[in-house]
Parts: sequence; C-alpha cells; structure tokens
Amino acid sequence: MNDVVKLLNNHRSLRKFTDEKLSDEMIRTLVGAAQSASTSSYVQAYSIMGVTDPEKKKALREISTQSYVEHNGHLFVFIVDFYRHKELAEQAGEEISYDKTENLIVGVVDASLAAQNMAVAAESMGLGICYIGSLRNDIKKAGEILGLPEGTFALFGMVAGFPEDEGSQKERLPFEAVYHENTYRRIDEVQSDIDAYDQRISDYYSERTDGKRADKWSEQIIGMLGKKQRLDVDAVLKEQGYLGQ
Amino acid sequence: MNDVVKLLNNHRSLRKFTDEKLSDEMIRTLVGAAQSASTSSYVQAYSIMGVTDPEKKKALREISTQSYVEHNGHLFVFIVDFYRHKELAEQAGEEISYDKTENLIVGVVDASLAAQNMAVAAESMGLGICYIGSLRNDIKKAGEILGLPEGTFALFGMVAGFPEDEGSQKERLPFEAVYHENTYRRIDEVQSDIDAYDQRISDYYSERTDGKRADKWSEQIIGMLGKKQRLDVDAVLKEQGYLGQ
Repeated sequence: MNDVVKLLNNHRSLRKFTDEKLSDEMIRTLVGAAQSASTSSYVQAYSIMGVTDPEKKKALREISTQSYVEHNGHLFVFIVDFYRHKELAEQAGEEISYDKTENLIVGVVDASLAAQNMAVAAESMGLGICYIGSLRNDIKKAGEILGLPEGTFALFGMVAGFPEDEGSQKERLPFEAVYHENTYRRIDEVQSDIDAYDQRISDYYSERTDGKRADKWSEQIIGMLGKKQRLDVDAVLKEQGYLGQ
Repeated sequence: MNDVVKLLNNHRSLRKFTDEKLSDEMIRTLVGAAQSASTSSYVQAYSIMGVTDPEKKKALREISTQSYVEHNGHLFVFIVDFYRHKELAEQAGEEISYDKTENLIVGVVDASLAAQNMAVAAESMGLGICYIGSLRNDIKKAGEILGLPEGTFALFGMVAGFPEDEGSQKERLPFEAVYHENTYRRIDEVQSDIDAYDQRISDYYSERTDGKRADKWSEQIIGMLGKKQRLDVDAVLKEQGYLGQ
C-alpha cells in the first residue's frame, strides 16, 4: 500500500482547529488541486467561495449549528454554478439551459470531485477537514449571505485548518456489501455482512460511551432517513433555475 | 508543493490502456480508498459495480459509444444507492423516504467523493482513469444491464487501467474566475480573466490541429449546453423513487 493510499485510508473528519489561518499560498494550492479534478465535458460547473468575514461566518454557523463553521483555518463553500455559462451565452446571443435533471447531476458531480481533491490535498499538507452539508439546513439563506446569483447554489461547505485533535474513524460498510460484480446483489445476498457490520458499529459506540449508546449503523440511518428534512432544497433549486423539467 | 499535490495537479483523463487486467488486490485497494471518503451523516448512499462480463461491457460501450468502456484494465460503475437503506427499514418495520431533492444530492455527493478518492488512489498506483458520464446517454438501459433494483441508478462509470499513452491536460479556468472571497463576483468582475482564458484555449486547439480547430472554452460549453440531451434522466430517476417531491 503506497503513501497516497495510506493517506486516503487514514481520512477522518476533524472538527477542532487551532486559531492559525491558512496562508494565501495554501488557499491557492488547495483551489488548484480542486480544479485539477475531472470535469464533465470540460464544463467546470462550480465555484469555490472562501469565507473570512466574521459576520458571514457567524451567520453560516447559525445555519449549520456547528461551532467549527466559525472556528477553523479557512471556510470554503462549494457552489454549483451555471451562472457564468448563462452570462457568456447571452453575450454571444445564444440560448442555453441548465434546467434538466442531467444538468443538476453534472454540477453536483463536478463540485464534489473538486472538493474531494481539495480534501486530499489538505490532508497531505497536514491540515484537517470536515464537510459541512448542514449549510443546506437553510440553503436559501446561505445563498443570500454569499451573494449568489441565479444559476448557483451552495452545495456544501468545507472547513480546513490546523488540527487540534486527532478525530476518529468510523468503519465503513464491508467490501462485500458495497462492491458488486456484473450484477447487483440484493439484500439477501449481503444480509449477513451487514448484520455483522451492524454489530461491530454497536460495539464501537458501546465501548466509547460505557454502554450508554449502542445503536447499529442501520438504526442510525433509518432514524435519519425517517425524518423529513431540508424540504425547501427543491424549491430553492427551482428558483435558481434548476429542475425545471 | 508536496508529492500528493503534484499527483493531483498532474491528473489527466486516459483513454488508451494495455490489455492487462487489474488484480483482485488492486480492486480491493481502490474500493477501500473510495470508501474512506467522507459520507453525509454516515449514510454511505452508494454502491460500486465492477463489470468484467464481456457482453455487459459491450452493451455499456454501445450506450457510451466510447471504445475504452470495453478496453481497459477494469470498468467500475458508481451507483447512487438507497435500496439497502429501504430494505433495512422495511425489515425493522420503519418507514423511510429518499424521494426528496435533498436525498438525491446526498447520494450524488457521496458517490462522487468516493469516486474521486478512487481516481486519486488509482493514479498513485500508476494507473490511468477516465470518468464515463456517457453511461447516462441511456441511464435506464445501463440500470437494466447491471440488474439495478429500485432505489438505485448508475451515476457514472470509471475505467482504470495500465496506460498506453500519456494523455494530455486541458487548462482549467483561472483561479480568479473560480475563487470568490466572501461575496460572489459577477461576470463583469471576471470577464477579462475569462476572455484571456478563452484565448489561451483557442490557441491550444489551434496549435494541436494546425489551425483546423480554434474554439474558445466559452464556445465549447455554449455549444454543449445549447443541446438538450439526456432528457430521460429525470423520468428514470423518478421511476427509481427519486425526485418525488
């Protein structure tokens, strides 16, 4: 296993950072690494926002509820972005559209590939990162805070910084439950793998909490997916010109 | 700049591979690296399919039209997947839903972060990769070929293999056009950067084709986004239980 694979396998989300800020050079390096990721048909359908204004960080923290949105080395926000394509088309007297489900997928994939490259680059530089999906708790307000024009929306944030703790890793689903060959294997073929995994996750929580908490992975995700949340995302995306189909 | 950042910055899509196949150990390493990426609220809403059956590879190539879908070291398909969550909830007598736009975003982001980790791992191992978004040329048929159940769809493929050429890199949008600080900068603030970039891309094509082709970046993306394509993605996702909102 080479050093890069070790780095990837060692990933953990970090949520506590020192006060030290990322340098401009670091920020440029991270954005450059992000941009080096593949992009669908060269469309580059994303922007990256750096947020340093204390008022804006505070406002975004209120949306997210996570303290590390305010306290970090740098706060990035990844933005799905067809605004500049639309403007360039108008200048050229041409008409384009990005209102199909396909376009939304392209934008979300493009921004995500870029973000994960940034995450890997940051960790290779000794920084820690955490994705901030909770900006979508109020995606409309997040867009207002960042002055986002039509054709854009805040997909997620990413905090980066100098680690103040080591974080911890949570075991992923077993290979057998996630990897299929040639044909999708239904639940009955992977049930025993998932059950054993569920038990390991339950044991993990139990050990860490002196038995106060012992939920399985499946219990966690059922609880989460049972809640209907972020129901406004659909309407906000449509306001921004997406999902008109 | 450290070696990992150099690796990321050196990315190029490769489309020509030798006949050598990836070993089982390599496949396990790649899937493990993919799974190490962050996942929204631990939901792990994706599966990874390896396609080795020659008939299936041929059928997927027909959808994609790209020869390297058939000729490569290994063909992966990344699948957005809430099927197992739904099955586990039913077993527990609970009801969950994944039909909100928010759920689609979570699944697409989860699968994309995993895929980009795989891409980085592959390149660190001396392999080349190329994303295959063109599986969405017929997303319904791709799902049928792979035996995908309700709650899943093929997001994109990724070919990996031992390189037979070096590929080439296409310059990305300038930092100034992609990175914003605190407030989104509208088109007039980045116009000169985009214009200069457009000219560089035009020169790049012109040099490589003896002047036969000299399109700017903006011309390319306007041409592409002017075509209405993959209009069936929306209906297929809805059939699979997504975007019911």
